[in-house]
Amino acid sequence: MTGNVLGEQLTLTSFGESHGRCIGMVLDGCPSGLPLSESDLQIELDKRKPGQSIITTQRKEEDKAEILSGIFNGYTTSAPICAIIWNKDSDSRPYEVIKNTPRPGHADYPSFVKYGGFADYRGSGRFSGRLTATMVMGGAVAQKLLKYSLGVETIAYTTQIGQISCSSLSYEEAKQNRYTNEVRCPSPKIAEKMKSNIIEARKNGDSLGGIVECISVGLPIGLGEPIFSSMESDLSKALFSIPSVKAIEFGSGFSGTKLKGSQNNDEYAVSKDNKIITKTNNSGGILGGLTNGMPLVIKIGFKPASSIAIKQKTIDLVSKTECEIVVPGRHDPCVVPRAVPVVESLVSFILADHAIRCELIPPVLGDRKNEH
Amino acid sequence: MTGNVLGEQLTLTSFGESHGRCIGMVLDGCPSGLPLSESDLQIELDKRKPGQSIITTQRKEEDKAEILSGIFNGYTTSAPICAIIWNKDSDSRPYEVIKNTPRPGHADYPSFVKYGGFADYRGSGRFSGRLTATMVMGGAVAQKLLKYSLGVETIAYTTQIGQISCSSLSYEEAKQNRYTNEVRCPSPKIAEKMKSNIIEARKNGDSLGGIVECISVGLPIGLGEPIFSSMESDLSKALFSIPSVKAIEFGSGFSGTKLKGSQNNDEYAVSKDNKIITKTNNSGGILGGLTNGMPLVIKIGFKPASSIAIKQKTIDLVSKTECEIVVPGRHDPCVVPRAVPVVESLVSFILADHAIRCELIPPVLGDRKNEH
Amino acid sequence: MTGNVLGEQLTLTSFGESHGRCIGMVLDGCPSGLPLSESDLQIELDKRKPGQSIITTQRKEEDKAEILSGIFNGYTTSAPICAIIWNKDSDSRPYEVIKNTPRPGHADYPSFVKYGGFADYRGSGRFSGRLTATMVMGGAVAQKLLKYSLGVETIAYTTQIGQISCSSLSYEEAKQNRYTNEVRCPSPKIAEKMKSNIIEARKNGDSLGGIVECISVGLPIGLGEPIFSSMESDLSKALFSIPSVKAIEFGSGFSGTKLKGSQNNDEYAVSKDNKIITKTNNSGGILGGLTNGMPLVIKIGFKPASSIAIKQKTIDLVSKTECEIVVPGRHDPCVVPRAVPVVESLVSFILADHAIRCELIPPVLGDRKNEH
Amino acid sequence: MTGNVLGEQLTLTSFGESHGRCIGMVLDGCPSGLPLSESDLQIELDKRKPGQSIITTQRKEEDKAEILSGIFNGYTTSAPICAIIWNKDSDSRPYEVIKNTPRPGHADYPSFVKYGGFADYRGSGRFSGRLTATMVMGGAVAQKLLKYSLGVETIAYTTQIGQISCSSLSYEEAKQNRYTNEVRCPSPKIAEKMKSNIIEARKNGDSLGGIVECISVGLPIGLGEPIFSSMESDLSKALFSIPSVKAIEFGSGFSGTKLKGSQNNDEYAVSKDNKIITKTNNSGGILGGLTNGMPLVIKIGFKPASSIAIKQKTIDLVSKTECEIVVPGRHDPCVVPRAVPVVESLVSFILADHAIRCELIPPVLGDRKNEH
Repeated sequence: MTGNVLGEQLTLTSFGESHGRCIGMVLDGCPSGLPLSESDLQIELDKRKPGQSIITTQRKEEDKAEILSGIFNGYTTSAPICAIIWNKDSDSRPYEVIKNTPRPGHADYPSFVKYGGFADYRGSGRFSGRLTATMVMGGAVAQKLLKYSLGVETIAYTTQIGQISCSSLSYEEAKQNRYTNEVRCPSPKIAEKMKSNIIEARKNGDSLGGIVECISVGLPIGLGEPIFSSMESDLSKALFSIPSVKAIEFGSGFSGTKLKGSQNNDEYAVSKDNKIITKTNNSGGILGGLTNGMPLVIKIGFKPASSIAIKQKTIDLVSKTECEIVVPGRHDPCVVPRAVPVVESLVSFILADHAIRCELIPPVLGDRKNEH
Repeated sequence: MTGNVLGEQLTLTSFGESHGRCIGMVLDGCPSGLPLSESDLQIELDKRKPGQSIITTQRKEEDKAEILSGIFNGYTTSAPICAIIWNKDSDSRPYEVIKNTPRPGHADYPSFVKYGGFADYRGSGRFSGRLTATMVMGGAVAQKLLKYSLGVETIAYTTQIGQISCSSLSYEEAKQNRYTNEVRCPSPKIAEKMKSNIIEARKNGDSLGGIVECISVGLPIGLGEPIFSSMESDLSKALFSIPSVKAIEFGSGFSGTKLKGSQNNDEYAVSKDNKIITKTNNSGGILGGLTNGMPLVIKIGFKPASSIAIKQKTIDLVSKTECEIVVPGRHDPCVVPRAVPVVESLVSFILADHAIRCELIPPVLGDRKNEH
Repeated sequence: MTGNVLGEQLTLTSFGESHGRCIGMVLDGCPSGLPLSESDLQIELDKRKPGQSIITTQRKEEDKAEILSGIFNGYTTSAPICAIIWNKDSDSRPYEVIKNTPRPGHADYPSFVKYGGFADYRGSGRFSGRLTATMVMGGAVAQKLLKYSLGVETIAYTTQIGQISCSSLSYEEAKQNRYTNEVRCPSPKIAEKMKSNIIEARKNGDSLGGIVECISVGLPIGLGEPIFSSMESDLSKALFSIPSVKAIEFGSGFSGTKLKGSQNNDEYAVSKDNKIITKTNNSGGILGGLTNGMPLVIKIGFKPASSIAIKQKTIDLVSKTECEIVVPGRHDPCVVPRAVPVVESLVSFILADHAIRCELIPPVLGDRKNEH
Repeated sequence: MTGNVLGEQLTLTSFGESHGRCIGMVLDGCPSGLPLSESDLQIELDKRKPGQSIITTQRKEEDKAEILSGIFNGYTTSAPICAIIWNKDSDSRPYEVIKNTPRPGHADYPSFVKYGGFADYRGSGRFSGRLTATMVMGGAVAQKLLKYSLGVETIAYTTQIGQISCSSLSYEEAKQNRYTNEVRCPSPKIAEKMKSNIIEARKNGDSLGGIVECISVGLPIGLGEPIFSSMESDLSKALFSIPSVKAIEFGSGFSGTKLKGSQNNDEYAVSKDNKIITKTNNSGGILGGLTNGMPLVIKIGFKPASSIAIKQKTIDLVSKTECEIVVPGRHDPCVVPRAVPVVESLVSFILADHAIRCELIPPVLGDRKNEH
């Protein structure tokens, strides 16, 4: 399996380049019988698409999904679902200018070495954040599949931009508010501050990072395939494929490393509706690599975007001498807000893959044999 | 591929149970021509084995590796290398006592549900930290392979135990000192404090967590297979398979999320020996999911061990009522020190797999055809 | 990995349906630096496309390949290559008529059961011979890759149609003549007879089967990954994915089972140009699952096409009663001639995958770093 | 995945060498809750083990299976099942003599080239027929799993040795008689002739080939994952990993290539017990790569064993000159009889893998949660 494929039984193959003809994906292993149309993909893509506000890149792409295969009479058929987005507003000129002077913090230099100079560098090619749209298309199907077959729901939202962070919120609050503002922070006041910080960074030609938190509820007990396909393993593998992600923690994470076992362990109890639950959720819903029925809680740290309009030192790959670069082109001053639906997509995707792996989702949803 | 296999072209299959006949592994995809013997595995296993000091579990296992296949005349043959360790000092009685009362913080409850009551619960079965010895055996081969063919070197060491942490050290200092004390902290004074904190936690029946840092040097440029097999993706997948790991960051990690792009980007320079380097290393040696030739830097957060001798609330799985548990048996009061060689092993393993994937390590090392 | 993917390091993902919007494929794992354009695919597709003569289906499709990704400046980039063919001349009406009466010999009935009635049955959906065009697109890249990097050449041709068979021919003769007639038999006289037999079968509403022979020359020694990825294993896995293939043999095959070891073994010799060769080639170029440098020789048996216009007994899936069917629609009276380029494609694909697996083809072909 | 692993969700990893310490396998992906003990493996191994009669190799191995992991309280746990056989009666001296003079028909020469002279050549190392015992161990579990969960039954038997062949027999007859004689031919009279032919070949220092037929009954409809994991694809991949197999056909196979569609198609009917069946079974139970509920019928052609005691031409690998060889050591004059249980094993293994893939076998068989 190459690096362009994610998943074990539900698989997502991403193809396309930022400035090529299109970007696209093949989702394979989806059960038959799931009602699905292009609008299911579009709803999620619209959350990620660029050019929506002053805090994102000004590249205008409507990011319209076209499903090429795998759907018949409004249902999935179990055949691979290919969907593509035609690229429409690419401008490759800035990339010709900088093709020999790698941007600090970006993939340019190691990519140049690895692929022997053959890689498509326009718009960063395969390393562009634009490719996360292919993750969102696959994730949209996974989200629907999880909801339809198991009632699982996954939400993500911004909790930190640069130095500004918001305190914890209830699941319902976060779910209601997260898409009500451009930074996708469920706390409207904090969102305002975050937004103005991003605007300021952009004005300075600089960029900001931040943190996205993700919660899944309604999970069955026992998802995860230890030793090496623990839930933390597979979720982190997926999430670290989002450009700029450099840190991940589950539950109490790094702060939990300072606690004692007696403080960090989650004691068991029987809930009012007679379910086995834990009183706290420091585990973030995962014990021994397996979901335990409590909400899954992940924090994902994004570094500040590397393409900035401030002068930086770099090297000329041809002459192998030091020089300077001011990155031209259109870029997000902060990728965090647009990463929120990407996080939701990838977490949903991994959960759906695992639900299929342990046969909690069957290969056929429903039965149309009688209606044939 | 099941959850018991790690790697893409170099693969590690882990088998065995904590209190079964043995634990073992099959390493497959190793090139032919690598000099290898049981002592190469034993050196690494000895760093992990239990019962070495007052701060580890008192289970006494010599953890002696036996290679069953794949070596001929002192060299690897490219055939799968199976190696096992016979279990000798297991005592399953405490696990009979608690088999219906899941330990808070441990895999007991979701594992019970997932496997329908058939899982081997003795010594936590497949969920035992003991299984990390199988990772160390595979990692020992990977470490030798990387050193022999590419000169890559990987070290890990403890930087935090509970509330005690040590400041950054030079690579050489860390390399020299990390195994000179029981906690594997390269700063001897801090190590003393850490040790006494662990002893105190044990005395109280409690446990501690901590942080392990890992550095690899000598890496070629371009390891990593974006999008989904980025170096961060595959390293985190492997490291989250170590029991108790709940957080990971690369380079500036979570603290980098608060910086501006102009602060966090690593500017390029040409070194005295005419190599392209970066002046800082906030990226932790990975850009766009690819190694960039700078040292790889990872921080791994371990929660406090869950098996503690302090009374905790749990539930009885048979009667489905709340009750209490004081975990019996022999356990590590802090898994961090013994996890240090495990981290070195898994990081080496993933690097070796990637070096094979991009053909920087050939399928045959040297040529014995003339000596046949 | 699902059933829609072939290959281990070079992978081919097939998507699309016979009467859907398009059929397509993603080829992944192709080294960077291979000169490639749509015409490389088209040359091969043209050999397979329908409607070219009286002996094929009358569905008219120009089968024009469009490459959507993975090529930059005329070279492969190592990114996934997606290519599609829009479906243009589909007529689904006959399939509505027979959707509840499975055709004898076709996938209709088990497919109906397996996918719960959700599968796209129009034009046989995923089970259509039309999908072999996706194999040809992937195979075209593999063929070029093998030729460009290793000088390997693969040819296939018809040796039997129904009761008519042609005797063995030299490699050169077969290579020159195989595409000079519609049945792809290198012996022109036999080809005439074969053709008239097919025409007669069509006139009777019946169909014919036959045998395709395939030879590869210029192979390096040692391709194959025993035990389970022997050359015979992986070649047969690929070839049995062509609809109607029911038998395969390598070298002396079934007739070799009647020989003695002293007759069937191929003795070694040193050739005039000082190479180690075998005097005979009963092994078909494979010993112990590994190529031995001699020509690879495979015979592939195709059953007669199942869609015939003669009345047959079937059952009604709704009423579960016996009834009769005369298959409507446009079908090949003999799939063998159009299968010839498919065989060449799949054999090339597997050989290329194996050449990459044992690193005989590097991940970068040439170096454009200086021309950047 | 390397070449030492077979299967997709049920996987078999084979390790060990003919003259190494042991041979063994790891079976992974087996559901929990299957009653299993060493005797289940032993029953099948005893059918394959050498030294049982005058017509097999005289190497004496009791081939005693030891299960090292994956079983608890008499049931599978879903953890990997490792089982090994210690090698006891190996004599490597003959292989030192011939190590530079490759045996015609054997893997010696390409293996020498591929592995750079590092491969274990003693007893043919990994290329020995002895490794089929690891297939039998995995297959024994698969056979039990299929029988226990689905009632599927698979039998194989010899139908041809050299020039002697037996006519078709009923399933019941074949099942009863196949293991009543040393050649595993269900027709006792033909078996006698076959045996005396083998004895004569051995006396002449020569060897014989033959054909094994395999039938599975009780199969569910819809096993198989087209396009590339068709039943024919995956079965042939597995069966071609048995040393000496050079030809395979399903149902009417090569003889079907001479029939017309109207002759070869299997018409549908409704059986007395109201099941949909086909009146004939030319498809061998597979349509469109899917099982159709009819008996699965496969014919497997074995070439005559290559290690013969008759003088043959070979080359000296050191001096690269032509010379002669009379293969020393102990060898089977005909591998067919001992291959019969291997065929049963591999066919069962692939069927079980596919039954798991389409979730016809659940991940937990039964429920012991109440007995915990």
